[in-house]
Amino acid sequence: MTTRRSPDSARRSERSRQAILTAARELVGETGYRKVTIEAIAARAGVGKQTIYRWWPSKGAVILDSILAMSEDEKGEISLPDTGDIEADLRLVIRATVAEFADPAFEAPIRALNSEIIDDPELAATYRERMADPMNEAVRRRLRTARAAGQLAEDADLDLMLEILYAPLYQRWLLRSGPLTPDYADALVDTALRAFRP
Amino acid sequence: MTTRRSPDSARRSERSRQAILTAARELVGETGYRKVTIEAIAARAGVGKQTIYRWWPSKGAVILDSILAMSEDEKGEISLPDTGDIEADLRLVIRATVAEFADPAFEAPIRALNSEIIDDPELAATYRERMADPMNEAVRRRLRTARAAGQLAEDADLDLMLEILYAPLYQRWLLRSGPLTPDYADALVDTALRAFRP
Repeated sequence: MTTRRSPDSARRSERSRQAILTAARELVGETGYRKVTIEAIAARAGVGKQTIYRWWPSKGAVILDSILAMSEDEKGEISLPDTGDIEADLRLVIRATVAEFADPAFEAPIRALNSEIIDDPELAATYRERMADPMNEAVRRRLRTARAAGQLAEDADLDLMLEILYAPLYQRWLLRSGPLTPDYADALVDTALRAFRP
Repeated sequence: MTTRRSPDSARRSERSRQAILTAARELVGETGYRKVTIEAIAARAGVGKQTIYRWWPSKGAVILDSILAMSEDEKGEISLPDTGDIEADLRLVIRATVAEFADPAFEAPIRALNSEIIDDPELAATYRERMADPMNEAVRRRLRTARAAGQLAEDADLDLMLEILYAPLYQRWLLRSGPLTPDYADALVDTALRAFRP
């Protein structure tokens, strides 16, 4: 069944959708993933439970979308800057990533989700497909351009370079095993470039 | 109060301790960290609950010890091989680590513990102090020897090199984002050496 909707109704829907995503993100930050309920999200967003269930199959799906909404542009796409200088572009991107993960408002819901996906292979697959893969593909595209321009070695393993750039940062954040600073971001970029330059 | 114990009693104690650690490790692998109880560990090990509480303050502490018991030598110490060739030694150690994390019997309890420590800063601190720090220190010692022997750059940041060697492996394992193979181990060692050689 298709429903024809007036512009007003579409605007109202989009407003509700945004209110639900914001409520989900805030609640996870405040109480932790496990304690958040669909009821609480609905109450905070000022919508009925049935509105949430019409758009999302599960709590995990709402929360994942609430996190995705933070990193997409208005077209829903992720891309990296390309000034033609891979070192400058990576420095910018890894510094921004480190800053995000050092920001409690940004990192709390992602931490909650990460704790959940370790035990839940199905949610892990959704996370990979909807969040990790598109992010990784955006970085890989930029690295491929750099390799084609001769700024990385011809035989550089770009999947491995991606891991070298991001995995140490991810581990530091997840295990709280070291500070997340601009200097650290620069050191990661320098190391990756030393290993993968021509 | 001190108690004087006969050799027989000491042997019995050590047997009980080992039975408890084995039971804890097996149960976490079978049912997951959250579902394991002190009662179940005691029943499987054939000891009374009070025996466990005499030696360990909490479930997390028993399980952490059960994991530690897998990687310590008979003196309870961790050290890396030192043949004088840092490349050969790292290849051996990283291959062995990758193989361990690809082994379900070894990785299941560590996965359970990792899921737990993400949400539990206190258990995370114990984990760092008892497990991660001694392991990292053992690797750092070997890297320092290599740097002193001129096999690594004089200004090599050994903490960062440690992260470059282990964090990608940790992330692949935790997120199940790629295969854990000997080739992957070798690629990590090659990359780290390219970045930190003189």
